[in-house]
Amino acid sequence: MATRMSDSLMYRHLWTAPELDYLFEEKGRLSIWLDILKALASAQADLGIIPVESAAAIAELVSVETLDLDYVATQTRASSHSTLGLIKGLEQTLPPEVHQYVYYGATVQDVTDTWFGIVMRDVGDRVAAHLGQLQTTLLQLAETNRDTVMVGRTHGQPGAPITFGTKVASWADEVARHIIRLAEGRSRWSTGQLGGAVGVLGFFQPAGLELRARFCSALGLGTPDVSWLTSRDRLAEFGHTLAMVCATLARIGSEIYELQRPEIGELLEPRSSGGVSSITMPQKRNPESSEHLVTLARLVRAGSTVLLEGMDQQHERDGRGWKAEWIVLPEICEFSLLATTTAGAVLAGLEVNTTAMANNLAAHGALLRSEQVLAGLSTKIGKHEAQQLLQVALSELAPDGDIAAVLARHGVSASAEELRRWLTQPATGVAGEQVDAVLAATRVPSDSVR
Amino acid sequence: MATRMSDSLMYRHLWTAPELDYLFEEKGRLSIWLDILKALASAQADLGIIPVESAAAIAELVSVETLDLDYVATQTRASSHSTLGLIKGLEQTLPPEVHQYVYYGATVQDVTDTWFGIVMRDVGDRVAAHLGQLQTTLLQLAETNRDTVMVGRTHGQPGAPITFGTKVASWADEVARHIIRLAEGRSRWSTGQLGGAVGVLGFFQPAGLELRARFCSALGLGTPDVSWLTSRDRLAEFGHTLAMVCATLARIGSEIYELQRPEIGELLEPRSSGGVSSITMPQKRNPESSEHLVTLARLVRAGSTVLLEGMDQQHERDGRGWKAEWIVLPEICEFSLLATTTAGAVLAGLEVNTTAMANNLAAHGALLRSEQVLAGLSTKIGKHEAQQLLQVALSELAPDGDIAAVLARHGVSASAEELRRWLTQPATGVAGEQVDAVLAATRVPSDSVR
Amino acid sequence: MATRMSDSLMYRHLWTAPELDYLFEEKGRLSIWLDILKALASAQADLGIIPVESAAAIAELVSVETLDLDYVATQTRASSHSTLGLIKGLEQTLPPEVHQYVYYGATVQDVTDTWFGIVMRDVGDRVAAHLGQLQTTLLQLAETNRDTVMVGRTHGQPGAPITFGTKVASWADEVARHIIRLAEGRSRWSTGQLGGAVGVLGFFQPAGLELRARFCSALGLGTPDVSWLTSRDRLAEFGHTLAMVCATLARIGSEIYELQRPEIGELLEPRSSGGVSSITMPQKRNPESSEHLVTLARLVRAGSTVLLEGMDQQHERDGRGWKAEWIVLPEICEFSLLATTTAGAVLAGLEVNTTAMANNLAAHGALLRSEQVLAGLSTKIGKHEAQQLLQVALSELAPDGDIAAVLARHGVSASAEELRRWLTQPATGVAGEQVDAVLAATRVPSDSVR
Amino acid sequence: MATRMSDSLMYRHLWTAPELDYLFEEKGRLSIWLDILKALASAQADLGIIPVESAAAIAELVSVETLDLDYVATQTRASSHSTLGLIKGLEQTLPPEVHQYVYYGATVQDVTDTWFGIVMRDVGDRVAAHLGQLQTTLLQLAETNRDTVMVGRTHGQPGAPITFGTKVASWADEVARHIIRLAEGRSRWSTGQLGGAVGVLGFFQPAGLELRARFCSALGLGTPDVSWLTSRDRLAEFGHTLAMVCATLARIGSEIYELQRPEIGELLEPRSSGGVSSITMPQKRNPESSEHLVTLARLVRAGSTVLLEGMDQQHERDGRGWKAEWIVLPEICEFSLLATTTAGAVLAGLEVNTTAMANNLAAHGALLRSEQVLAGLSTKIGKHEAQQLLQVALSELAPDGDIAAVLARHGVSASAEELRRWLTQPATGVAGEQVDAVLAATRVPSDSVR
Repeated sequence: MATRMSDSLMYRHLWTAPELDYLFEEKGRLSIWLDILKALASAQADLGIIPVESAAAIAELVSVETLDLDYVATQTRASSHSTLGLIKGLEQTLPPEVHQYVYYGATVQDVTDTWFGIVMRDVGDRVAAHLGQLQTTLLQLAETNRDTVMVGRTHGQPGAPITFGTKVASWADEVARHIIRLAEGRSRWSTGQLGGAVGVLGFFQPAGLELRARFCSALGLGTPDVSWLTSRDRLAEFGHTLAMVCATLARIGSEIYELQRPEIGELLEPRSSGGVSSITMPQKRNPESSEHLVTLARLVRAGSTVLLEGMDQQHERDGRGWKAEWIVLPEICEFSLLATTTAGAVLAGLEVNTTAMANNLAAHGALLRSEQVLAGLSTKIGKHEAQQLLQVALSELAPDGDIAAVLARHGVSASAEELRRWLTQPATGVAGEQVDAVLAATRVPSDSVR
Repeated sequence: MATRMSDSLMYRHLWTAPELDYLFEEKGRLSIWLDILKALASAQADLGIIPVESAAAIAELVSVETLDLDYVATQTRASSHSTLGLIKGLEQTLPPEVHQYVYYGATVQDVTDTWFGIVMRDVGDRVAAHLGQLQTTLLQLAETNRDTVMVGRTHGQPGAPITFGTKVASWADEVARHIIRLAEGRSRWSTGQLGGAVGVLGFFQPAGLELRARFCSALGLGTPDVSWLTSRDRLAEFGHTLAMVCATLARIGSEIYELQRPEIGELLEPRSSGGVSSITMPQKRNPESSEHLVTLARLVRAGSTVLLEGMDQQHERDGRGWKAEWIVLPEICEFSLLATTTAGAVLAGLEVNTTAMANNLAAHGALLRSEQVLAGLSTKIGKHEAQQLLQVALSELAPDGDIAAVLARHGVSASAEELRRWLTQPATGVAGEQVDAVLAATRVPSDSVR
Repeated sequence: MATRMSDSLMYRHLWTAPELDYLFEEKGRLSIWLDILKALASAQADLGIIPVESAAAIAELVSVETLDLDYVATQTRASSHSTLGLIKGLEQTLPPEVHQYVYYGATVQDVTDTWFGIVMRDVGDRVAAHLGQLQTTLLQLAETNRDTVMVGRTHGQPGAPITFGTKVASWADEVARHIIRLAEGRSRWSTGQLGGAVGVLGFFQPAGLELRARFCSALGLGTPDVSWLTSRDRLAEFGHTLAMVCATLARIGSEIYELQRPEIGELLEPRSSGGVSSITMPQKRNPESSEHLVTLARLVRAGSTVLLEGMDQQHERDGRGWKAEWIVLPEICEFSLLATTTAGAVLAGLEVNTTAMANNLAAHGALLRSEQVLAGLSTKIGKHEAQQLLQVALSELAPDGDIAAVLARHGVSASAEELRRWLTQPATGVAGEQVDAVLAATRVPSDSVR
Repeated sequence: MATRMSDSLMYRHLWTAPELDYLFEEKGRLSIWLDILKALASAQADLGIIPVESAAAIAELVSVETLDLDYVATQTRASSHSTLGLIKGLEQTLPPEVHQYVYYGATVQDVTDTWFGIVMRDVGDRVAAHLGQLQTTLLQLAETNRDTVMVGRTHGQPGAPITFGTKVASWADEVARHIIRLAEGRSRWSTGQLGGAVGVLGFFQPAGLELRARFCSALGLGTPDVSWLTSRDRLAEFGHTLAMVCATLARIGSEIYELQRPEIGELLEPRSSGGVSSITMPQKRNPESSEHLVTLARLVRAGSTVLLEGMDQQHERDGRGWKAEWIVLPEICEFSLLATTTAGAVLAGLEVNTTAMANNLAAHGALLRSEQVLAGLSTKIGKHEAQQLLQVALSELAPDGDIAAVLARHGVSASAEELRRWLTQPATGVAGEQVDAVLAATRVPSDSVR
């Protein structure tokens, strides 16, 4: 039973990343929650807080497989408490003398925030890994097209030549920064939570700090210096980092969407095998994956804002911001991972039409070389005069017109040789060198990072 | 299998309104989609576009009960098309000669946007109905407490007296405007969609307009003057109206949350029977429903922003903004309806502690009557001198101090009789009259509005 | 001294609407504030609350021209109070016996919220008036181009033919709804505020309600049933309405931006006389006004969200949400009015290149008529077979290829006559009729609405 | 002339940080722009691109003092170009032969983005420095109140004891992470821009890369590997970091606002000397600075979202997102710096009422020790039975009641000695140790970070 498209049998493939089921799908999530409870019991047994036998029983008998989910759900609703139903469910599978030692002294948020710590660690790592693969693709694409000249466009208008390599290098440069951000933030957001009622572990004194350290460590999480029950910058930072990652992928998607217009035809996202773009217009080939990158980025952006807003929390626990995270964090994780895999597939199969790139450049002819002509002319008659003259001259010039003739008509005595040089010299400035610089800079981090 | 908390077996009661299952739960949604396809076939048969027998077969045989959902889902994924899987699923239940006449000439968006029209109409109506009930509760509460004096607070600080009735009247006043907005917007967003490939129904010429009108009318929806495939203000308006409704409920929830602090103790949300607030602090009574109203409002606000952003769409169809609506619209509908029912329950069982209200007023004593003293004193020594004098005098006054003595110490010759009048006259200004005004104004609309 | 681009001498023309200076520029704003204080004094004199002579002196002597703004500012900072500096400034121009009767019993928010009421009324009216003019332009454009056939595009890809008129009609249809929304919301947001300390006018009892009614009425504003000091849905609704208006203009701007690409060349925003698009590329003609519409819409959207968030206010006054409105409301009003005038200029001078529209249609040739061919073929071999056959056939077809030959090669026995009819019949469906419908529907409201 | 409150003479002190005037006030901004043009000319002269004499003349003669701002503004409007007016203004102060060498080959965005690089570097450093001072205050406050016991509150309800030190430590812990984030992001956002027409410096070939490196280095900025004309993650990251900083300050402000309620009275923000909270209620002491922190945080959050949205830019330059940054970046920098100074003042003068803290704790009596009683009782009768028993027992217990008697009445044979231990042992768990941990962890970074 699914009321959201995200979990619809028909459409969940558009909104869900199966590789995250172990974190978010109900049984996966509960399985992690049970691991958390086991780690807690084990640490408590080590410190003599609960009997060793109880911890052993919990480790052995507690399992999502033997949990009666319907019973848990019913009890959850009956108690209006987020985990009392789960506790009652666990009691069904544990001997009576162990009942009280599962979930001993912990609160809902200890379990869910620790799960959040695992989620942020794992999803962050997976997004980084996907970006690493994406970057490999991008760097190859940039290298291959280091000198593939194409029209550079500003304000949607053809301006001056660039290379496709430099465009891709700009994408790779952005991705590289995200990989670094994910690495830098990791230690902040991969953190466990054990705070008890009000964040000071009054239930466990005097062993509280030691218990928390053991508990977090057993789960492979960092130990916080102070409980973060209402200190939520970790989530805000993580969410915004995902939102930036998706925004970069949306930028790539938008660029493909625009350059895939048949009127331009320079890029084509791969056609999915067996895919049908339109049933009313069978000839269509739509950039649907590229579009989807934009869609996902918008959703993740909206979600991340909720996490940022959620930083303004009151006192020692504040359900208002906290519960909103339950909806938003899984959602943006799913969308972000899906975005990285979608972008990976699009870029791996991207068709680059270098002929179209060359043709478009030719179609805009000498116009696009204006920057060079301007530079050359500036050395002869000064930049300002050159600008004014070119603005008039170029407005008179047909796409295939003779710029030398037009300039001569305006009294500029540029020799044919000079004009030839201005018009034929490699016009793409540092485009290739920028590719080299990005290759040099980003190949190292992509190796060294985790 | 649920990857989102919203559809989790354990937690869906916190995020989902069961009364909307017929619109959003997968089978409910598909059932409505099939109704749409039947209405289309019927209108097409009426106009001779498809055989009458085919429309009859579609009406009889197409049913969500006989649809093989797994097959539909598999075919959806295989085709990468949003409804081709559904079409193939329908073919399984239709005789071959009818196959081609189901979904004849329509596109995905014709189905989903028409579903959106039904969703906005029905959810708008249900929210309005819930608000109507809520308003009845509020008006009774306001009337009952028309003259229940309590501390008015500004900037979180006790200021001057109000009545609880006037506070509730301000809520009711806001709710009344939402009911009107929902009524005003209804004809705009209760609109069907039939545009075909690019919004001009080229497939159906020359009967396109007539077909659209019959199709929309059969579903109880308005007929648009022009296709709205990329004209999405209807959704943005609807989403924002829901967001405003939820913001009002959040304002009410926040107020209860604050006034439920034991240090204030003036309001108490009803305790859920069998509910447990805290397992580590068994004495706790948390305003959890009030908090949840704030949580839901934040989520709906974030979602509604996506719909507003989605208004900037390109050309004749634009997947980027459109697909985001698939996630956001169901989500904000569920949350909003849940918010109205939650608020309804909270307000219906709200405990108003008039003793605490009176005690708090007494505790701040004469301080809270400063506005009256200022007004009275102003008539004797002028407003400015009165202000300066009071600022000094009141800072010296103990909560239970003798204001007459303090004033006398500062040379103000207010008679005991004058002081008594300033300090004992009804100090709540137009509080009661405001209740009367809201009662008079809003009782009418709540009857007349749908 | 300006720290924001909005008020920069160099750039304010990009961010500010001079026709709103009387509302927002410091002297304009203060002039309105003084009008509000005069209206208050006059109403108070009428009710015997202050001496008639004082009200007369206030009416005569209070003026922004004689106010020492530097002194007001210094006193404002010294008192950390929003209007005490202003009161002290007014005292300088009033005889001592009148001092206490200016701003008598009112609070900051009474002045600023009443100003907000005037702002929302006036800016709403002006935006509606600008949209009315814009709509006239749009309706003419739609009528003129009712049958101007052009490529319809979906997912950025040429799909099937539409007319330019139907595209413009879709814009006009959206604008028409905004005009209605502005008319419907007007009575809600054109409302004065007089609440005193905590919204119940304790200072003025027993004449509070009568005073408020006279005060609001004198300023041409509605009288609220209850103080709206912390009831801010009026602002949220107004802000979102502006945001939707700007979003529609952004949609129009985006469309022009895309269709102005030389590779498409179907629309051109007017070139500003003397304008220079690029100093490094003199040949450029950038759609800068169209871009600016998108920029403004994003800023107004972000601002309107703050107003929506600001609805969750506490108690009887809450500085947190209220003060944010001081920044946001003027900003979104300026941007919105600027957007309507910018869009007006762009559309009034819009160049429609019908030759390019025809050429682009021809370039995509028979492909774009697939919807008709499909419809025709469906009547012969069934829709599904027709779809599959067309998908193969069209993929083999060169832009100028012979579709009859290709179909024949696939065994479809469509006669030349049939094909001719499918390929040459008016292919734009209800495009023209949609223009007629919008013209019919929107010409009436544009007259009747204020 | 100011149309925005931010630049109003009366109110700018609430919205503007004077220490940033050198970056944002019109003359300050232009002065930096001229420094950028001088650095460009100097680097160009070094590389032989322009005459050394011209660069010298530019260095000597170009000055904001001699610039005719009115002329610049008029020319800006006349040309509809963002910097042509400035260029014409500069020509007035330069000899004719130098005219063409100022702003040689650069574009608007080279100047404004490089200014952005300086802005982000400087504002980032200043915010970090302010946070460093704030942290010193916080750490002292935490240390002083390491063991100041107070009520811990969850869901707005008193729960169990904490210490005020641990609450402050949680603030300091969050601030410490922001200081680290600002340090980590610095090298990313302190970056210059020199891209020319389309980001490949075609005008300057072959010396482009060398020119860019010298130009950036001269201004103390990093050199990008590739032009970032449409790669805006730097801005999004910077903006979000500011938004997180402000959110933390808002959290602190909200806490003070709530705990300053006289009904709680545990904290008081310092009273501004000469400040007047309310003219109608002279006795009021409002937490206005604390409120303002929340206001500023909301505005910065909304602005930062625009920067994030702006990452999805097209091609090689895209005015839509770029121009929105002109409004948003200065705004959020001003607000953020103002927030750090406001918070600094609030915290430096914060009044901590330890008596109120103790009284509030006593008022909630034994109830607040329930966590300890529960822990103790759990060792005797098991956790579950203890929970159920306590829930009943505590509901019967008066604030000053005898818990031993109540427990005895329910058949629990806890000895008086045991009860005394549970009820009197230090109940604050790891509160103090958490302070120690934060002190240990954050004192180091606050020294070592820039």
